[in-house]
Amino acid sequence: MTLFQIPNMLARAVTRAFAPGGECARTEALGPSIPGVGARAGALASFRGAAQPRSGSAPQGLGGLWRSAFLGGTNDLQGDRLATGRAADHRGGNHAVALVGAGPGAKDLITLRGVRRLEAADIVFFDRLVDPELLDLTRPEAELVYVGKAPGRHSWSQARISEALVVAAQQGKRVVRLKCGDPGVFARGAEEADALRMAGIDYEIVPGVTAASAAAAATGGFLTERGTIDTLVLTTGRTEVAGADADWLPALRPGCKVAIYMGVAEAGRIEATLSDHAWRDHIQVEIVADAQMPGQRALRCGPTAIADTLRGNGIKNRTIIFLSLPKDCALASGESSLRIGGEAGQACV
Amino acid sequence: MTLFQIPNMLARAVTRAFAPGGECARTEALGPSIPGVGARAGALASFRGAAQPRSGSAPQGLGGLWRSAFLGGTNDLQGDRLATGRAADHRGGNHAVALVGAGPGAKDLITLRGVRRLEAADIVFFDRLVDPELLDLTRPEAELVYVGKAPGRHSWSQARISEALVVAAQQGKRVVRLKCGDPGVFARGAEEADALRMAGIDYEIVPGVTAASAAAAATGGFLTERGTIDTLVLTTGRTEVAGADADWLPALRPGCKVAIYMGVAEAGRIEATLSDHAWRDHIQVEIVADAQMPGQRALRCGPTAIADTLRGNGIKNRTIIFLSLPKDCALASGESSLRIGGEAGQACV
Repeated sequence: MTLFQIPNMLARAVTRAFAPGGECARTEALGPSIPGVGARAGALASFRGAAQPRSGSAPQGLGGLWRSAFLGGTNDLQGDRLATGRAADHRGGNHAVALVGAGPGAKDLITLRGVRRLEAADIVFFDRLVDPELLDLTRPEAELVYVGKAPGRHSWSQARISEALVVAAQQGKRVVRLKCGDPGVFARGAEEADALRMAGIDYEIVPGVTAASAAAAATGGFLTERGTIDTLVLTTGRTEVAGADADWLPALRPGCKVAIYMGVAEAGRIEATLSDHAWRDHIQVEIVADAQMPGQRALRCGPTAIADTLRGNGIKNRTIIFLSLPKDCALASGESSLRIGGEAGQACV
Repeated sequence: MTLFQIPNMLARAVTRAFAPGGECARTEALGPSIPGVGARAGALASFRGAAQPRSGSAPQGLGGLWRSAFLGGTNDLQGDRLATGRAADHRGGNHAVALVGAGPGAKDLITLRGVRRLEAADIVFFDRLVDPELLDLTRPEAELVYVGKAPGRHSWSQARISEALVVAAQQGKRVVRLKCGDPGVFARGAEEADALRMAGIDYEIVPGVTAASAAAAATGGFLTERGTIDTLVLTTGRTEVAGADADWLPALRPGCKVAIYMGVAEAGRIEATLSDHAWRDHIQVEIVADAQMPGQRALRCGPTAIADTLRGNGIKNRTIIFLSLPKDCALASGESSLRIGGEAGQACV
């Protein structure tokens, strides 16, 4: 083992820089839908004096020594697959498919475990909102497959993605399905897991930072606050059945914060729902767009001005709409804190 | 800049191994409350042939080159503080205090950004449930302060922690407050942020993987599932006012999953509350203890057997109690899906 080996991202960058008709061209061909892919290749090529051709297919990113010592694994893929002891017991790493949370927005919000899975992958299926620079962590020979999922644009169907995961795993490839945020939260991971289970393929989930956490952190705020907000609701503006009622409303009571994912297109309906809310005048709305990204914006507005605020600021995707109803609003109104029961539901609407 | 530099964890381990009366002894003195700290020092000391004494205070973990190239920053502390351009714009790193999410349980669930903040810290205040091996990422000269927060055991008061952060920042130190999971979710981060704001001290929040995400991932499950669970409620078994009603109950409707943090001590009350629930027979309870840790356990039980299940299995801390009420239970019962309104609240209780 060489103590200091060339990280995957450099190897990939150098490969791209020196073989424009190969890996580089294929990645670049994904075009504007994944801006930035390959953009670093030029800059990184200046490191080529230090980089040496990789031998074998051992994943060596994160720095071999650092990784080996801190993460407790060995430094090559085979070792990772056969790892025993504590690390292997609860960390997996020997599953055919890993559903990996990339974290939201900024690439440095991925977990170390997520990095390891990317480093070891033979094939990566990635979404539109994943930071393309994360793909630089893969081995030069890894396949990168863009599956889209942009609303209203060309992309793979969920069924096609699930099938592709199964096929790749059946071919013996080490598969990473790279998803924005946390694979467990509004990421349709369950459908992919179901397909894998039905095909008898072992999978693991590598959790990630979910968008609500990233959005709150980006504004210096918190999702819960002792004595003020003790319940956090994550919900979505979209439901499977178009036009279905938003089911989160009864939860919006004093002491609660609601984070609405993918709510921009439903803003009018959210606003209409809130306009009759008993605590309407106390609801605080905060809109965080492009959290943890260069164009990040945080806006506040009243509960009946959500759609206008979104429209007026040209806000579309990558947005969390927060609705907060602090506990003290009940005290401020001279009413006692709501209790569990039918009255609470009524008071809320 | 040396292309390949010695990671902080090795420097720290070597320092400890060779100076048992110094850094090592101080860390070890924290004793059984943080098992494992220093445990790797011996093993890592075997790397000492490769390690060289560090000069200056530049943080160089994660591999200097990897970090510099992938994360876009420079390779020394000064550069990190003065970083300009895209990375600095939205990623901070030049704040006096960073509230950092360590992720839950396993150390490799921290984000890359969290690692960078640990590497750069002059002083780290850490909780009981943080994986002590994360502290190996700090520089050898960094101060490590255990602030406890074990229920019913000796620990610092929240006010004392907040004050310590302020004082350390006022001394010009680069402060990391390392918290389990995500700093925004039931971590009392808001109180610390308030104290910092009042003292005029700049802070940033580095989000982390919250315990519910880690627990679901550990069991191969998902927090939301299209068409089945479209609302996720994170709440806590503890409230500021002892004996206060659990406010999450109205949210537990078909299509909802509730994740109760710190609920073990309140299991009896949760169970009593659920015993009258209109959908009681459809509520699925899953208890995940020590998620992402070697002793991880996942148990299922009925809604009226939660306390017995916890007691019978000796489950205490680091536990998430999930309550799920799939959408199709409404259909199975021959009732239409609940609509927004007072009726919904009544139907729930």
